[in-house]
Amino acid sequence: MTRGRFITFEGGEGSGKSTQAGRLAERLRARGLEVLLTREPGGSAGAEAIRELVVNGEGERWSPQTEVLLMFAARNDHLERTIRPALAAGHWVICDRFADSSRAYQGGGGGVDRTFIEALDQAVVGADQPDLTLIFDLPVEEGLERAFGRGLFETRFESKGLAFHERLRQTFLDIAAEHEDRCRVIDARGTEDGVALRVWDAIEARLPLPKVPA
Amino acid sequence: MTRGRFITFEGGEGSGKSTQAGRLAERLRARGLEVLLTREPGGSAGAEAIRELVVNGEGERWSPQTEVLLMFAARNDHLERTIRPALAAGHWVICDRFADSSRAYQGGGGGVDRTFIEALDQAVVGADQPDLTLIFDLPVEEGLERAFGRGLFETRFESKGLAFHERLRQTFLDIAAEHEDRCRVIDARGTEDGVALRVWDAIEARLPLPKVPA
Repeated sequence: MTRGRFITFEGGEGSGKSTQAGRLAERLRARGLEVLLTREPGGSAGAEAIRELVVNGEGERWSPQTEVLLMFAARNDHLERTIRPALAAGHWVICDRFADSSRAYQGGGGGVDRTFIEALDQAVVGADQPDLTLIFDLPVEEGLERAFGRGLFETRFESKGLAFHERLRQTFLDIAAEHEDRCRVIDARGTEDGVALRVWDAIEARLPLPKVPA
Repeated sequence: MTRGRFITFEGGEGSGKSTQAGRLAERLRARGLEVLLTREPGGSAGAEAIRELVVNGEGERWSPQTEVLLMFAARNDHLERTIRPALAAGHWVICDRFADSSRAYQGGGGGVDRTFIEALDQAVVGADQPDLTLIFDLPVEEGLERAFGRGLFETRFESKGLAFHERLRQTFLDIAAEHEDRCRVIDARGTEDGVALRVWDAIEARLPLPKVPA
């Protein structure tokens, strides 16, 4: 059994990555692949319970350092119970947010020591790094407008200030530059169909796809 | 303002440490000290919410590595919101379980990599190591009998097997040997009054106490 491929979608609020993750899952399934579409925080029973703690409540409910520990606890459960078994069964896994969100939100955005985050990543993710990470990039105001327009102004993260979201965007771009082999920046402006084309280009350029079924 | 002292109580199930922590708090208050009696996991609003996730449910609900991340998330919140402010205000803090319980339960008992636990301890506890740690030692069968007798057979940890509890005991003794300057082993057999005397001996030997008020 060939191990499946692991693709993560990253980016700020309102970048359209969740919609695009769903579209990519459909397109890969049309190629005959078994695809698991999942998200973080969450994706397993334990991780969803942790998600409830992290996502809800006041903005200052948790310090960034407590937050990153909760995120990696959820991630550890998600990997053990959902992601690794799926990859081992040969399925492709598309995950809406993963470890780069911890680097950006709690590291770049929240000021948690980067060395500590890398130690957590090493212990929790280890060798199971994504095969490809698509980083959805969008001007901050545009993303927040989209998020607010959807009525998604309910989470602790969306309520943080503009400067926080600017640091977030810059950190994602820094991660993409630092991990060129793994990451690709997707211009998230424009129409949903246009972005979907850019996503597909990235997939075809980086991953070996099965032929279209006859 | 002189910083308060930080005392932790550690040991296996049924070792009587919670009772003794309460007695010590009273005795220190009788000396005119402001004492905060707290416990882990828990001790702050956020940490208590995490405690609910960790302590309840099936024995296999969390892997030891997820567990240790949740424990350090709770500990980080407890330190930030409860312990550090109390110490800064000059209060003495007595904590029923602390980082050595992570070393023993998830490390020695659960097999989580010790280096990883030390990295977590360094990031979360850092310079705020306990001034004194009392390790309550008791033969495993005796402790479990006491815990069951109290009707406290409800937690995930008490339901683990004898071999787990033997590893736990040994790890606590190893920690005491490794950190002689910080730790003292308390023989937890015998009467409550007898153990209380041994606790007080350790306090007097290791910490500078104010004189008995006239």
